[in-house]
Amino acid sequence: MAKLKINKLVVIGVGLIGGSFALALKRARAVKLVVGVGRTQANLAAALDLGVIDEATHDPALAVEGADLVLLAMPVGQMPAVMRRIAPHLAPETVVTDAGSTKRDVIAYARRHLAGCLAGFVPAHPISGTEKSGAAAAFPDLYKGRNVILAPLKETAPAATRLVRSAWQLCGARVLRLDATEHDSIFAAVSHLPHVVSYALVNALARRRNARQLFGFSAGGLRDTVRIAGSSPEMWTDICIANRDLLLQSLSDYEDELARTRKAIARGDAAQLKRLFEAARSAREKWLVKTR
Amino acid sequence: MAKLKINKLVVIGVGLIGGSFALALKRARAVKLVVGVGRTQANLAAALDLGVIDEATHDPALAVEGADLVLLAMPVGQMPAVMRRIAPHLAPETVVTDAGSTKRDVIAYARRHLAGCLAGFVPAHPISGTEKSGAAAAFPDLYKGRNVILAPLKETAPAATRLVRSAWQLCGARVLRLDATEHDSIFAAVSHLPHVVSYALVNALARRRNARQLFGFSAGGLRDTVRIAGSSPEMWTDICIANRDLLLQSLSDYEDELARTRKAIARGDAAQLKRLFEAARSAREKWLVKTR
Repeated sequence: MAKLKINKLVVIGVGLIGGSFALALKRARAVKLVVGVGRTQANLAAALDLGVIDEATHDPALAVEGADLVLLAMPVGQMPAVMRRIAPHLAPETVVTDAGSTKRDVIAYARRHLAGCLAGFVPAHPISGTEKSGAAAAFPDLYKGRNVILAPLKETAPAATRLVRSAWQLCGARVLRLDATEHDSIFAAVSHLPHVVSYALVNALARRRNARQLFGFSAGGLRDTVRIAGSSPEMWTDICIANRDLLLQSLSDYEDELARTRKAIARGDAAQLKRLFEAARSAREKWLVKTR
Repeated sequence: MAKLKINKLVVIGVGLIGGSFALALKRARAVKLVVGVGRTQANLAAALDLGVIDEATHDPALAVEGADLVLLAMPVGQMPAVMRRIAPHLAPETVVTDAGSTKRDVIAYARRHLAGCLAGFVPAHPISGTEKSGAAAAFPDLYKGRNVILAPLKETAPAATRLVRSAWQLCGARVLRLDATEHDSIFAAVSHLPHVVSYALVNALARRRNARQLFGFSAGGLRDTVRIAGSSPEMWTDICIANRDLLLQSLSDYEDELARTRKAIARGDAAQLKRLFEAARSAREKWLVKTR
């Protein structure tokens, strides 16, 4: 891995994701100046206080002047406006990457709004995060041992991809490549669907008249199952809408599986129900326990 | 709390639940002799090795002779056979309690098979557990700070209820009372439904041709959401069948909620989707974060 030196890093959207990227690169001494761009004064002030960023501004166009690397780390729904705003101010050598959880939509936005700068654009997705958000939640080890997916375009310059790969590797991540559609299909299943499942489970209980009593009797099982229902509603709305075709396919598979389980319960078919539960337990042990 | 002294405790089903109860009472020096009853030699041998029990047998009838307290901690599906087997051997002063996750069915079994011993029968449900099972998973702090529900019958002698309450309090638990139907309705929603949701989510992914690849890309969100899909299939089959009427009601509420979410996604209705996600997040914060 070549020594990486970024003179100016611009993080647009200084939350958990963008803030942790900045902190990790600062700790690695790979960056001189971090400029944070955000909408709310309070969050930018916190980011400055905590040393996540060195300078703050509300204006992305101003921020990207002379930048080596720009990370778009705001909710995907804000991508088109931000891209439109920064495009005229990007130098030819500036590399732009993103941290969006969906890739086909981000690429479509880039083709529309960053048309002249595609050689410097590296679509990416760090597979990490917690249910917390905001600059105060950022920490430099967020990406340690985690996967980061790169989905470079045919127009992307190899040097731009190398820069982004090096930056993520310095954060401790394992960098992989996927085609954008393959990426979106995989994450519809393993990430977007579980969020929908988790939000819906909380709402199904919360709608009941005795919701307070119900939650009072809950134990670790429910708590873990709905942990990700604490995730940012804004971000997850954008993701679900952006990836809706593939998410709806995954949701259908899941609804079919629930219907299969319901039938076994309704028939009192213990043998079939046990087969379903055993299949789930063994799949989880075989595949999931290995991952972190 | 009066000083509790149990000369002979019999634990039928020496797994996580029964084993942890024995270990907690041993640590509190509240029990002289623990006799474990189980089906598999390997688990009983492990329980003896680990000091969870002092004696082991396959025969519940033999075990309960002269017992002060008998804990029925095997899967609920085995209750009728075990109750039938022990009933003729129970002394009038022996107190019998259980740890079943459903209460209406256990009570119905007791009315049929322990008809002469109902004064000594205290239906109970400790709200605890992990996805692990077996005697080797038992530990004395399992019940510390957790709720234990008692659902005594009108026939249950107050002294029997007091004994069982004291024993659970010595395990560090908070003891509460609920009517059996109320209990089953609450736990259908906050425990049985989440298990069905979690098993079904794993199966929906595991059925896909690229299941291995999918799980390889999963992160903490999926892992937490499906943690309880590692739970004992045998135990959860029994629970789902025993409580099927109330579980199916909870499952219907959940399926309605999923359908509501699906509609918002399919319509691309970001405003409605965000409202749903915000409602879930705030309900989780309001009610669930407080509990442990």
